[in-house]
Amino acid sequence: MPMSELPIEKAFMLIEPGPVILVTTNDKGRNNIMTISWHMVLDFTPQIALRTGPWNYSFQALTRTRECVLAIPTIDLAEKVVSIGDCSGAEVDKFKEFDLTPLPAVDVKGPLISECLACIECRVTDYLEQQGIFILQGIRAWIDNERKERRTFHANGDGTFVVDGSTINLRNLMEDKLPAGV
Amino acid sequence: MPMSELPIEKAFMLIEPGPVILVTTNDKGRNNIMTISWHMVLDFTPQIALRTGPWNYSFQALTRTRECVLAIPTIDLAEKVVSIGDCSGAEVDKFKEFDLTPLPAVDVKGPLISECLACIECRVTDYLEQQGIFILQGIRAWIDNERKERRTFHANGDGTFVVDGSTINLRNLMEDKLPAGV
Repeated sequence: MPMSELPIEKAFMLIEPGPVILVTTNDKGRNNIMTISWHMVLDFTPQIALRTGPWNYSFQALTRTRECVLAIPTIDLAEKVVSIGDCSGAEVDKFKEFDLTPLPAVDVKGPLISECLACIECRVTDYLEQQGIFILQGIRAWIDNERKERRTFHANGDGTFVVDGSTINLRNLMEDKLPAGV
Repeated sequence: MPMSELPIEKAFMLIEPGPVILVTTNDKGRNNIMTISWHMVLDFTPQIALRTGPWNYSFQALTRTRECVLAIPTIDLAEKVVSIGDCSGAEVDKFKEFDLTPLPAVDVKGPLISECLACIECRVTDYLEQQGIFILQGIRAWIDNERKERRTFHANGDGTFVVDGSTINLRNLMEDKLPAGV
């Protein structure tokens, strides 16, 4: 922290690169966090799809409260993020266990995570039961502009993760295709 | 090339990190390619979700042929990959225009791309019209084990791309959660 508001039309840019993310919920007064890599952008508003199901403790919170926060962790948090994914909110108060700081969101009950690079407040607009896909509508976004470490990380699926390296700029090849506002 | 077969249960590892990918199709005898970043893993078999719709020329090929190949490009191909996304197969023979080599797949008509790091042959099992999501079933996978450049790249959504950096190993934190065979 501090987190500054990020224009909501830029929030898809946090998800499109495919980093490991955290999903926070607040159900019956209890905060919880899950770790997820199976997500994609659906449009620039942004709508976002998440793949999860009833085997995940957060599933009930998502279904009941119909809201959550997507938080983007950076590489300095990698060990915590993996460990968050390796235990259940049914047994562990994850904010306490992993020494993370919940901050109040504006439009949803699920908290922002102070230690993350950015957060997107979302409403659950649909759950596709057959495929196990939640459809989220991002409604407000936050970013920590003062944070030094800004590299996210991506799951390879075998317990290894690839860290963001250099950035290349190819805007000149796609000016016509860029959405408004980025 | 040469491409070697990759066990299909490892194919999700090509998609989970969230790289920019290419999707090839063959419709009415014509090969085509599209560029996409909006995709996610659905399970380890692997099922994979792709977000696209009728505004994309490849949509018709996916709908009609119900098959495709997902190809994973590396950073040396970045300019071609972006340019492929900036023109339409209705007007351009993209393999010819971008000097890419189609190789026959085994189970589908859409070609592998010789210059890519890896390819996944897929069947289209469903299209969720309301959300604009294709559901794919990966059925066979290929990887170029001899390729030197193996770094993929990830779209930020604004014409910039982040290149794979270092890899970290956190298997010790998640041994219980790893799928079989990875």
